[in-house]
Amino acid sequence: MSRFRRISINQATIKHASLATAITACNASGIESIGLWREPVAEVGLDEAVRLVADSGLRVSSYCRGGFLTSMDVRDRQRALDDNFRAIEETAALAAVGAPGSASVLVLVAGGLDPPSKDLAGARAMFEEGLARLEVAASAAGVTLAIEPLHPMYASDRAVVSTLGQALDLAENFAPDVVGVVIDAFHVWWDPDLSAQIDRAGRGNRIACYQVCDWSTPLGHDVLLSRHYPGDGVIDLRSLTRSVRSAGFAGDIEIEIFNEVVWNDDPKRVIERALVGIHHSVESNML
Amino acid sequence: MSRFRRISINQATIKHASLATAITACNASGIESIGLWREPVAEVGLDEAVRLVADSGLRVSSYCRGGFLTSMDVRDRQRALDDNFRAIEETAALAAVGAPGSASVLVLVAGGLDPPSKDLAGARAMFEEGLARLEVAASAAGVTLAIEPLHPMYASDRAVVSTLGQALDLAENFAPDVVGVVIDAFHVWWDPDLSAQIDRAGRGNRIACYQVCDWSTPLGHDVLLSRHYPGDGVIDLRSLTRSVRSAGFAGDIEIEIFNEVVWNDDPKRVIERALVGIHHSVESNML
Repeated sequence: MSRFRRISINQATIKHASLATAITACNASGIESIGLWREPVAEVGLDEAVRLVADSGLRVSSYCRGGFLTSMDVRDRQRALDDNFRAIEETAALAAVGAPGSASVLVLVAGGLDPPSKDLAGARAMFEEGLARLEVAASAAGVTLAIEPLHPMYASDRAVVSTLGQALDLAENFAPDVVGVVIDAFHVWWDPDLSAQIDRAGRGNRIACYQVCDWSTPLGHDVLLSRHYPGDGVIDLRSLTRSVRSAGFAGDIEIEIFNEVVWNDDPKRVIERALVGIHHSVESNML
Repeated sequence: MSRFRRISINQATIKHASLATAITACNASGIESIGLWREPVAEVGLDEAVRLVADSGLRVSSYCRGGFLTSMDVRDRQRALDDNFRAIEETAALAAVGAPGSASVLVLVAGGLDPPSKDLAGARAMFEEGLARLEVAASAAGVTLAIEPLHPMYASDRAVVSTLGQALDLAENFAPDVVGVVIDAFHVWWDPDLSAQIDRAGRGNRIACYQVCDWSTPLGHDVLLSRHYPGDGVIDLRSLTRSVRSAGFAGDIEIEIFNEVVWNDDPKRVIERALVGIHHSVESNML
């Protein structure tokens, strides 16, 4: 039994590694689960990716990502939907060959304002409409669409869904196995309503994915890449993880770090460093 | 009658100008109201500042700022409280000599996490306790303490109060003339609950100050200084201002821009540029 039975490495943490390299690094570190991304899957093609995942012995904890459904141009929105339909199929194919306990979860990022639009409510409505269009395909494929609220500093250019409460408002229009939410510590740690919303998400069986990294200031030059190893910042990951577990989430905890320095390091060293960080930040019985 | 009867220039927009220079620039532009800061007031001393404001013919729209009550060290917290007591007296003195319609409003920023603390709830409790300690002095001086929620990207190092709803939860423990809120477009524009919370703030008579600037990405190197002229970003200032006015706020609209490029420009040119920006962004009957 590995030290961390329920830890997953999200591929974004070791962004420059190919899928094969990422799998090798996880296996070498005793990691049992991986969060996959579309780009490295596309790099080798879905069939080869399916074969690699099947042979890896790893669970699949999530697939990143779909969404981006807020273009003002209806044809662009249709293209985005079509791409989401493909992502749903990929999610199902990859989760099917993952080790038992794999999650058939497609992470959705809403998309931002389409310049020069200032219409947040309109963009939110487009995302909601897009969700409704994806529902049948996701349900048929046995895929859970997991809405990820992003930190409000990304509200203009990446995601008009900014809080867990808002994500749950959207998800609750659908069955829990079809639409859930992602709780990413980096995006939601600041929220005064977080504890209540985690409880709500748990009661509704909506927590499809839980991701961790850390927040520290000053933010980096590119705020998208200002994420840190668990324990290297101010997020109380101990309490947060306890809350998410208490709310009933029994899945893998994904370590997802967007950080150029981390990306440029050796994948195995990154994974070891992340494991040390989470070991010091979270009670071991949660991992 | 000037073109913009209810526009105020917050001194932070022309940070490098002395109080005298700021007043001259406002007068030259037909601006009738000014948002004052403690540093330029301290630079000339309170007595001289009072004389300058009295002679200026300007209204005082707010005084920035107090708060920062979240130190883990009890003596530091007491020092911060003492400083807030002085700020309350200064607020009253300056508002008293401002032109009729001046607002005796002290803006409060909560303060961030005191490293290495990760205890957000504890920091919030300290701010709440600090508010309670300031209540009697504020009430006696006829000063409204205005809690300013800051954008969640400042939650760790500047303000553990991040949403208008959270600020109202705190304010509602006190009488509306003693504790209110600041609505700063930059900090709250992204909030999916904003419209409901503005209505709530209006119903409770809690809107003590309304500030505008604009948000655009990519954020600058220092996210504290990534504010822009009204109209140069994505905030729908037209709708937001209409909501704030509809909620009953009849006070001056403060233009507050933290931006090094703006600071290095000539104050009169900055004011003219800001007026053009707000004229294009907000219906003129709101100004």
